[in-house]
Amino acid sequence: MDRVKKQAIAILGCGVVGGATAKLLTQDIDFLKKRTNLTFFLKYIIDTNFARAKELNLDSSLFKSNLDEVLEDPEVAVVVELVGGTTFAKNAALKILNAKKHLVTANKALLAMHGVELFAAARKNKVSISFEASCGGGIPIIRAIYDGLIANKQDALYGIVNGTCNYILTEMTLNGVSYKKALKEAQEKGLAEADPTLDVSGMDSAHKLAILSSITFGMQIDVDSIPVSGIDKLDLLDINSGKELGYIIKLIAMARLVDGKLAIRVAPSFIRKEHPLAWVTGSFNAISLYSHALGHSMYYGRGAGGSPTASAVVSDIISVFLGTAEKTFSTLPIWPDKTKPAPLLPDGEGKGRYYLRINAKDCAGVLSKIASVFAENDISISSVLQKELVEETAGEQITGAYVPVIIITHKVKEENMRKAIAKIDAFDFVKSKIVYIHIMDEHEEIF
Amino acid sequence: MDRVKKQAIAILGCGVVGGATAKLLTQDIDFLKKRTNLTFFLKYIIDTNFARAKELNLDSSLFKSNLDEVLEDPEVAVVVELVGGTTFAKNAALKILNAKKHLVTANKALLAMHGVELFAAARKNKVSISFEASCGGGIPIIRAIYDGLIANKQDALYGIVNGTCNYILTEMTLNGVSYKKALKEAQEKGLAEADPTLDVSGMDSAHKLAILSSITFGMQIDVDSIPVSGIDKLDLLDINSGKELGYIIKLIAMARLVDGKLAIRVAPSFIRKEHPLAWVTGSFNAISLYSHALGHSMYYGRGAGGSPTASAVVSDIISVFLGTAEKTFSTLPIWPDKTKPAPLLPDGEGKGRYYLRINAKDCAGVLSKIASVFAENDISISSVLQKELVEETAGEQITGAYVPVIIITHKVKEENMRKAIAKIDAFDFVKSKIVYIHIMDEHEEIF
Repeated sequence: MDRVKKQAIAILGCGVVGGATAKLLTQDIDFLKKRTNLTFFLKYIIDTNFARAKELNLDSSLFKSNLDEVLEDPEVAVVVELVGGTTFAKNAALKILNAKKHLVTANKALLAMHGVELFAAARKNKVSISFEASCGGGIPIIRAIYDGLIANKQDALYGIVNGTCNYILTEMTLNGVSYKKALKEAQEKGLAEADPTLDVSGMDSAHKLAILSSITFGMQIDVDSIPVSGIDKLDLLDINSGKELGYIIKLIAMARLVDGKLAIRVAPSFIRKEHPLAWVTGSFNAISLYSHALGHSMYYGRGAGGSPTASAVVSDIISVFLGTAEKTFSTLPIWPDKTKPAPLLPDGEGKGRYYLRINAKDCAGVLSKIASVFAENDISISSVLQKELVEETAGEQITGAYVPVIIITHKVKEENMRKAIAKIDAFDFVKSKIVYIHIMDEHEEIF
Repeated sequence: MDRVKKQAIAILGCGVVGGATAKLLTQDIDFLKKRTNLTFFLKYIIDTNFARAKELNLDSSLFKSNLDEVLEDPEVAVVVELVGGTTFAKNAALKILNAKKHLVTANKALLAMHGVELFAAARKNKVSISFEASCGGGIPIIRAIYDGLIANKQDALYGIVNGTCNYILTEMTLNGVSYKKALKEAQEKGLAEADPTLDVSGMDSAHKLAILSSITFGMQIDVDSIPVSGIDKLDLLDINSGKELGYIIKLIAMARLVDGKLAIRVAPSFIRKEHPLAWVTGSFNAISLYSHALGHSMYYGRGAGGSPTASAVVSDIISVFLGTAEKTFSTLPIWPDKTKPAPLLPDGEGKGRYYLRINAKDCAGVLSKIASVFAENDISISSVLQKELVEETAGEQITGAYVPVIIITHKVKEENMRKAIAKIDAFDFVKSKIVYIHIMDEHEEIF
């Protein structure tokens, strides 16, 4: 009896990315086979709703609604999980692995939350998990880390990994649009969900950061241990003030080693306008890595959307058929089930610079009182900008006797900064809470 | 008898990159083995001069001066060719391959000129050639093309692939330094050779472009068929005038498909200051790819220097021991010995926009005569800038009755542009030759 040729691909979930992947694997199949000298084909699309598949004129004989049935087909070598979420997807992923099929997935939440378990299940079944599409859409960043940069000790990773947030922040920064208006625009362009919470809260970036940093540093990263702040509370006044001082605001997913401990966070951050990450506009993504041999390198491209993400998914499928996925998965000890929990830098121990906006009463002695709190906490000031009038576009109403005082600090211990902020917030000449935003001085900075 | 364990590495050529590679493979060997779960070690450094190796405190037992002797050692799995040049290096490469050792090389000239022959020799001997370090230094751009972006039909490639040129142009653009002064600076910083011809003439970029485009498009590219112009004739006056109009000058290595034919060239080019490539400053390199599924992506990093280049060399060595180098080399049909010569777009057939500077007598009727030549050749003007005074920093002496007239055209057939330039050059009111510089409108442009 001939051995069954395992050349078939099944796609689970036919939404935006699933549809685009199916399109690539059908319309361009001759090109793909010629380009790779490999034989493979799309055999199944598993979903309960084939509306999108039908829009794409895909052959209806591909459609199946039962995953179990597909997994029984010995011809299927790889299943692409594109359903999203973490409940159904996790069960499905385990079934796929236990059926000894290679798993390709774009599901960042799934990997960030259940990576260790899934990787161990894959190993037990002698199959691989590939997930290039989970971070940075079509940007080949996962490969850059485990392959092109494998000879490097990694120092730091700074990423713009959420296209929705970057689109909104770009609109606010370049066109002076308010957060609300920019979000509405993003929704109209299909760049933001009707409920944008997962994106604008920073959680999506945290999932991606957990995955990227786990393989960058070879450590298990608990996504719940990542401090996350989003972009939904940002005020145009601060974005514009930062810009005046030479800084551009970005939602930065950051992880860096400080004396062997990992400092990690997702937060809106000001970066100098000269830094390459400052130029990443609209819905583009980019990831900067700082490596001991290579130095700074950056990977830029479309971080979302059907076709760019499908580019990454299909590259993973090809790696499975080429045999490189199995080699890297089975040999390299950088995957979450093979590594130890990251030693985290304790809360407050980090050092960094800050942008602060204090809405203070316009009267004598105010600056001197603020300055003395700073001195007590060993915080020195790099620059001060006192605004005469609040811009019309500002979301907050600060009128009359209150003026915004903007302060950029030198490097300060996070704990000290918090103490100082609490003390200043308590002054009766300060109206509303102090706004503070991280300044990302990049690699030189120990945060 | 036990099978010999092929775990040894030999480095041929211990200059800047060879030394840095040896350093990575000795000082960081424990890290590398832990990171990869592989066993390998540096056994030989082959050179006639070990000055650099000694500076690095490398064990003198590694030093050998005879390649043949090293090739007889059955333990050697891979030889890294880092001698440069194309005569000795070619012989050495063939010896290495015929001894059935995998070849890793950073030698762009060697691959650009003898790639087909070497790849065929490797295939005959069932070994692989890896060359990540040949283009873009440590940037994992070769891998991006053959792995991360493998599912894409590639439309175009635009690269800043020579750090020396980019350093000089950045100094000229941002600091208003003359070409001569910027070159001298680069030499003092070790960023340019004493004889900088290979770099500033654009030839080094052409070698890299030949390699990059051959695997991007899956075609054989004859390096001699690439039109090349360098940066050594550029005048600060043009750089500044372009800047005023919103353009930044870069030495761009470009290849793109136009109706199935390849348009290819290395030339100083103006790109809009908003484009990511415009932000690549100093000795950094970057490569933009335009792909049918992924769209625009860009890869940025240090394109030269010992340590960044060693990062790429060692990633290739690891791919050999991991087994992925052999898989990709033996399966993918994109290597130069497996592809056909590129169909080139005939000379003059390309279309593009141009920056022109005409040094014309400041008298009545001049612009009208120029404009009528343009009209005859179907060239329309996008903008005109007539300078009152030549800036002091300009290299050329244009004084008295001559003023520089700067013209930006709309898209025009190259052949027509040449005809118009020849006709205008012949006018007696025009002093010295017209200066013309390509404008890179990127992907929308058919050049």
